[in-house]
Amino acid sequence: MPNVCKKQREKWRHIKDLDIPQCSHGQVELLLGANVSEAVIQQEVRLFDGDTYTYTYLVGDRSTGEAALIDPVIDQVTRDLQVVSDLGLTLKYAVNTHMHADHVTGSGLLKQHVPSCRSVIAAASGARADVRLSAGDIVTVGGLQLETRATPGHTNGCVSYVLHAAGLVFTGDAVLIRGCGRTDFQEGDSGTLYDSVHREIFSLPDHFTVLPAHDYRGFTSSSVAEEKTLNPRLTLSREQFIKFMEDLKLDYPKYIDEALPANRACGLQELSSNHRALFEKLSAARA
Amino acid sequence: MPNVCKKQREKWRHIKDLDIPQCSHGQVELLLGANVSEAVIQQEVRLFDGDTYTYTYLVGDRSTGEAALIDPVIDQVTRDLQVVSDLGLTLKYAVNTHMHADHVTGSGLLKQHVPSCRSVIAAASGARADVRLSAGDIVTVGGLQLETRATPGHTNGCVSYVLHAAGLVFTGDAVLIRGCGRTDFQEGDSGTLYDSVHREIFSLPDHFTVLPAHDYRGFTSSSVAEEKTLNPRLTLSREQFIKFMEDLKLDYPKYIDEALPANRACGLQELSSNHRALFEKLSAARA
Repeated sequence: MPNVCKKQREKWRHIKDLDIPQCSHGQVELLLGANVSEAVIQQEVRLFDGDTYTYTYLVGDRSTGEAALIDPVIDQVTRDLQVVSDLGLTLKYAVNTHMHADHVTGSGLLKQHVPSCRSVIAAASGARADVRLSAGDIVTVGGLQLETRATPGHTNGCVSYVLHAAGLVFTGDAVLIRGCGRTDFQEGDSGTLYDSVHREIFSLPDHFTVLPAHDYRGFTSSSVAEEKTLNPRLTLSREQFIKFMEDLKLDYPKYIDEALPANRACGLQELSSNHRALFEKLSAARA
Repeated sequence: MPNVCKKQREKWRHIKDLDIPQCSHGQVELLLGANVSEAVIQQEVRLFDGDTYTYTYLVGDRSTGEAALIDPVIDQVTRDLQVVSDLGLTLKYAVNTHMHADHVTGSGLLKQHVPSCRSVIAAASGARADVRLSAGDIVTVGGLQLETRATPGHTNGCVSYVLHAAGLVFTGDAVLIRGCGRTDFQEGDSGTLYDSVHREIFSLPDHFTVLPAHDYRGFTSSSVAEEKTLNPRLTLSREQFIKFMEDLKLDYPKYIDEALPANRACGLQELSSNHRALFEKLSAARA
């Protein structure tokens, strides 16, 4: 993997210093201070899993080659590792916004294939991980800094990650596009969700891009301004929101029985036969 | 619809003049000339249809309220009209990159609900439409200009649209992410596809974002640099590419028998019973 990354990075050197206001995968050039020679060339890739409707985000700093995957899905680890490699990056962190109930995190499988990769999740999630975050903690990826904001309510360990320099916020299941995560299990609390979203997300600049963990209707991103004005749930009064969430009649999540025990161990559980086969296939491919 | 747009536009006035390098839905601020007072506030929304794996793109100018949908899907017309309305835009054009064989274009249904909307496709496609384009023609949406580039090979009427000011190219089925459209029907020709992509797409600046009509693996965008260096088909020699495409054994497209006759009329055909029901549902909702 490191050799592949090094080789692939050569391919990318020629476009590293271009003046690119917005390009590949929402890639933007970030200037640290006013000196262009200090530019951090950020890579931001948005990936989708059609089985669980999960978005996985790759955030990387092409100037150092460091990258993090946010909310990886175990069944997409082969694809995700290929993208990291293709773009000449090395995976530093597998980050989760919360302990998911609808899919098994890719953190554990990614760690098995990239020994230097560390799993990251909020301490309040109750999950095991190499790095257990508190509100205000900064996840550093090369020259990029992800600020951890506590956005509980869907679960009591939900956090959002803010990449201020690029105007991006990864909201997990706290804010979905024109929706929000359910609050009827995993210590969910509608009032807590309403308060944390209004305090931590809607206080961000209007133009910040909202990148959620899921979408079920084909939307790919939103903005703070849109969700503040157009979200049919979160624009209700606190009392109306609580009543609305109480009245939802939702199905039992189809993967919860497999996902919660696995994600409590942040992907470090004994793999299922399917995922064991995937692991062996990946190992063979790397041999 | 016009009243809704007007009302919704009020919601957006407060963020119209923000300095936003990159935000909602890949939204960027484009400066025409050096005068900030002449800024065109662009809206660019990426939407996905999970049944046909089709990306539909909304491109709009928030300073004039004009918008165009690129490659709309008939089953997603309700969603797409809602997004246009939510963002305070009015649909001027329903644009297609080519005569699709895998889904029915939303052009006809959109025209029935937005009388001022005009359907747009390349004359070489052989399809009927209000506007039939030739290479070099410019599609103007407010202050935005989409350049039409002929990229035949998947079909002989395929075009790509280049939004130079934002560094975006909508490639239809000519360039897919790490792939390309099939060339085994609809006057497909592998050599023609190889030549047109290398001439019209790979000649664009490396940092331009490639936005295809489909993706089947959860990728959402790419760049000219990535496809020039990483596309496993289009990085082959011309002869190798032709052989590779000849050797593909692909299934018969599942919707081709419904899609081709419908798309030849650019959505202006007699609607199927399903789509008739959708049309009536939409009509009722607007009443």
